[in-house]
Amino acid sequence: MRNMHDLAIKNGLCFVDGEFVECNIGIDGNRITYVGKAEIKGDIEIIAANMFVLPGLFNAHTHAAMTLFRGYAEGLSLRQWLEKIWDVEARLDEKAVYWGSMLACLEMLKSGVTAFADMYIHMDGVAEAVGESGMRAIIGYGMADRGDAEKAEKELEIALEVVSKWDNSFGGRLRCMLTPHAPYTCSSEFLRKVAEIGRKKNLVKHIHLSETLWEVREIKKQYGTKPAELLDSLGFLDDKTVVAHAVWLDDEEIKILAKRGVSVAHCPSSNLKLSSGIARVAEMVDSGVNVCIGTDGAASNNMLCVMSDVRIAALLQNLRKKVVKASKWLKAASENGYRAYGFNSGKISTGMLADIAIFERNLRHHPLHDPTSLIFTENCEAYHTIVDGELLVEEGIVLSLDEDRVLRNAENVARRLIEGS
Amino acid sequence: MRNMHDLAIKNGLCFVDGEFVECNIGIDGNRITYVGKAEIKGDIEIIAANMFVLPGLFNAHTHAAMTLFRGYAEGLSLRQWLEKIWDVEARLDEKAVYWGSMLACLEMLKSGVTAFADMYIHMDGVAEAVGESGMRAIIGYGMADRGDAEKAEKELEIALEVVSKWDNSFGGRLRCMLTPHAPYTCSSEFLRKVAEIGRKKNLVKHIHLSETLWEVREIKKQYGTKPAELLDSLGFLDDKTVVAHAVWLDDEEIKILAKRGVSVAHCPSSNLKLSSGIARVAEMVDSGVNVCIGTDGAASNNMLCVMSDVRIAALLQNLRKKVVKASKWLKAASENGYRAYGFNSGKISTGMLADIAIFERNLRHHPLHDPTSLIFTENCEAYHTIVDGELLVEEGIVLSLDEDRVLRNAENVARRLIEGS
Repeated sequence: MRNMHDLAIKNGLCFVDGEFVECNIGIDGNRITYVGKAEIKGDIEIIAANMFVLPGLFNAHTHAAMTLFRGYAEGLSLRQWLEKIWDVEARLDEKAVYWGSMLACLEMLKSGVTAFADMYIHMDGVAEAVGESGMRAIIGYGMADRGDAEKAEKELEIALEVVSKWDNSFGGRLRCMLTPHAPYTCSSEFLRKVAEIGRKKNLVKHIHLSETLWEVREIKKQYGTKPAELLDSLGFLDDKTVVAHAVWLDDEEIKILAKRGVSVAHCPSSNLKLSSGIARVAEMVDSGVNVCIGTDGAASNNMLCVMSDVRIAALLQNLRKKVVKASKWLKAASENGYRAYGFNSGKISTGMLADIAIFERNLRHHPLHDPTSLIFTENCEAYHTIVDGELLVEEGIVLSLDEDRVLRNAENVARRLIEGS
Repeated sequence: MRNMHDLAIKNGLCFVDGEFVECNIGIDGNRITYVGKAEIKGDIEIIAANMFVLPGLFNAHTHAAMTLFRGYAEGLSLRQWLEKIWDVEARLDEKAVYWGSMLACLEMLKSGVTAFADMYIHMDGVAEAVGESGMRAIIGYGMADRGDAEKAEKELEIALEVVSKWDNSFGGRLRCMLTPHAPYTCSSEFLRKVAEIGRKKNLVKHIHLSETLWEVREIKKQYGTKPAELLDSLGFLDDKTVVAHAVWLDDEEIKILAKRGVSVAHCPSSNLKLSSGIARVAEMVDSGVNVCIGTDGAASNNMLCVMSDVRIAALLQNLRKKVVKASKWLKAASENGYRAYGFNSGKISTGMLADIAIFERNLRHHPLHDPTSLIFTENCEAYHTIVDGELLVEEGIVLSLDEDRVLRNAENVARRLIEGS
């Protein structure tokens, strides 16, 4: 063991193996190379005394560029909301998506989110923002064939172009996946084909599933089956599949997800805001489903703060009288997202990629009878954020991006988009 | 109109009459003396460009000193939680309540909460903290006779001592009220007597009501009636009554509250955390009930941030497919609390007491398609807080309290209380 590191995080209260312990963390290159009580040194040293040191937070389901529409479609149900949003999304271009994604990366980094999974359009814009911001991400073009064979061809073509252009770029920080929108916007034939290509190319698949009761009824009407059963019958469900929302699953469907090793990206704020419902997370966790946390897009949240969503997630399961342990929620917000999408990160452990979020202990963490009850306080302002071994946020300031420039450009782009409507 | 004021707040985006408008605010002594577009000056000037200027937030139901037990009883239902908390509360003394309340005042001021309603024990400790912190408050000794006539006498005696000692103290910043705990811990005779004394002495009454389904069943079993009906039959409900929680009211009970002019202190985070349920706020608002927002104590939240609770409140009514307008939520968080407890404040309007909370516009408020969607972002860090015309928080720093000293003492007191158990 060397005691000199590229970066040393000293004396933090670190979330290691499901509990908080005071320890030191050594980072070399983009890896964690030491975790323990021994004194260490670093070219860069972060004194984390009186701070919570968490594995980097993973936003497991978002549409980053939708920051442009934050607060634009308030007070609507999912169906009405989609219509209003689809209308303005039709005018998006790569530049708009770039600035929207830059704003999202800025916000996520500042709240300790080190990685995200993004399904959207004009993905070159998202990819450029990931590259510049220094974040880790997995992205896919959101496909919807709507039963049109010609459109299906084109959608797949665009999606595969994104994969060939960006998969494993920026030193592996950016990966790509296949992201058909949902069972009610994609045909069975299309979803079967996407699943085949996914297996052949060894790509993660990510899809919206059972977000609303309307969807469940629609799928039953159209296919005589439940949404998760439909996807399973199409060979879509395996351990490289992440489904977003999963609000209306019954016990049988949860069993299917567990058996297939599917991960669920739970998006509690969005599900409340758009009147979708409360996902049965406790049952999923009990069944062994890997549950991670997503913010969804900013138009249905309105933040991209994983720690805020994990608080709401925990409160909602409490409401259901199905308490899930705080330490499990902290894993859902970090480790489980990385596992879902196949990144070797999300744990404070030697050999892992060095993605870390550090929060100051403030007056809301006094007294600290139980450090894991951190999940019940607001923690949307990280003090330091480290991605891939790089210190990207230092004392609350994003080092990789020019905040004023991003805000100015995102505002301008958003105004033009809305005024055009 | 003078254009020179004691304090001038200039160029803020101010919440006036239910919408955000750019204007200037003049304050003289403890009153707002000017609201408008004209240029004004002040002995103290706050440049609020790019900031949200809200009426001071009112925490309409809390037990301030319970900050001492923040995170102490996690993962329990209300009944189990109460047992664990009652056990440690039995060891509280005035000094402990003082330091717990000081920590609460510190936290509330920093999150823009200018006033609170407190029901607890050892109220001299709460009163001293209110006096020192500069906050506005209305407090009462939490009475529970549990059907014991002798205890009833004693409880009333303590409560009335608090009133005679502290009502209208600190230049009117501190007022007192009568606060019997709940219909299931107080006898009918006792509640009737409290109501009589309240009327005679013109005091506000504040009580927990229908927090859990267990309570509703218990009251039905014991009295053959519903909790709100029971209180009404005892003459307890009038326009000087504020009931906390009100989770399990049916339509008839909501009608009774509306008819009697009763206010409801809605505590969404606490109701989720302790598995109590979701209050039917939209129906209450539609029926004309004055709904305000409470955090409850820090042991069941774990924060005392009214803006965070109003976000959860709004999300929960959305979940119920009963969207309440964002501007109404902003009033619930401020104006309605002051109205409930009879303070001439909570509006940015001339003649009102000068209680104001100012929040910086941060990247989560970009773009700003709709300023009222402020309620859907986290706003627990006020930039400036003004109570009774005094600038108590300046650029996030509490001027009236020594933060380190409060944290140190509250920690010590809390540790001793828990270790004693």
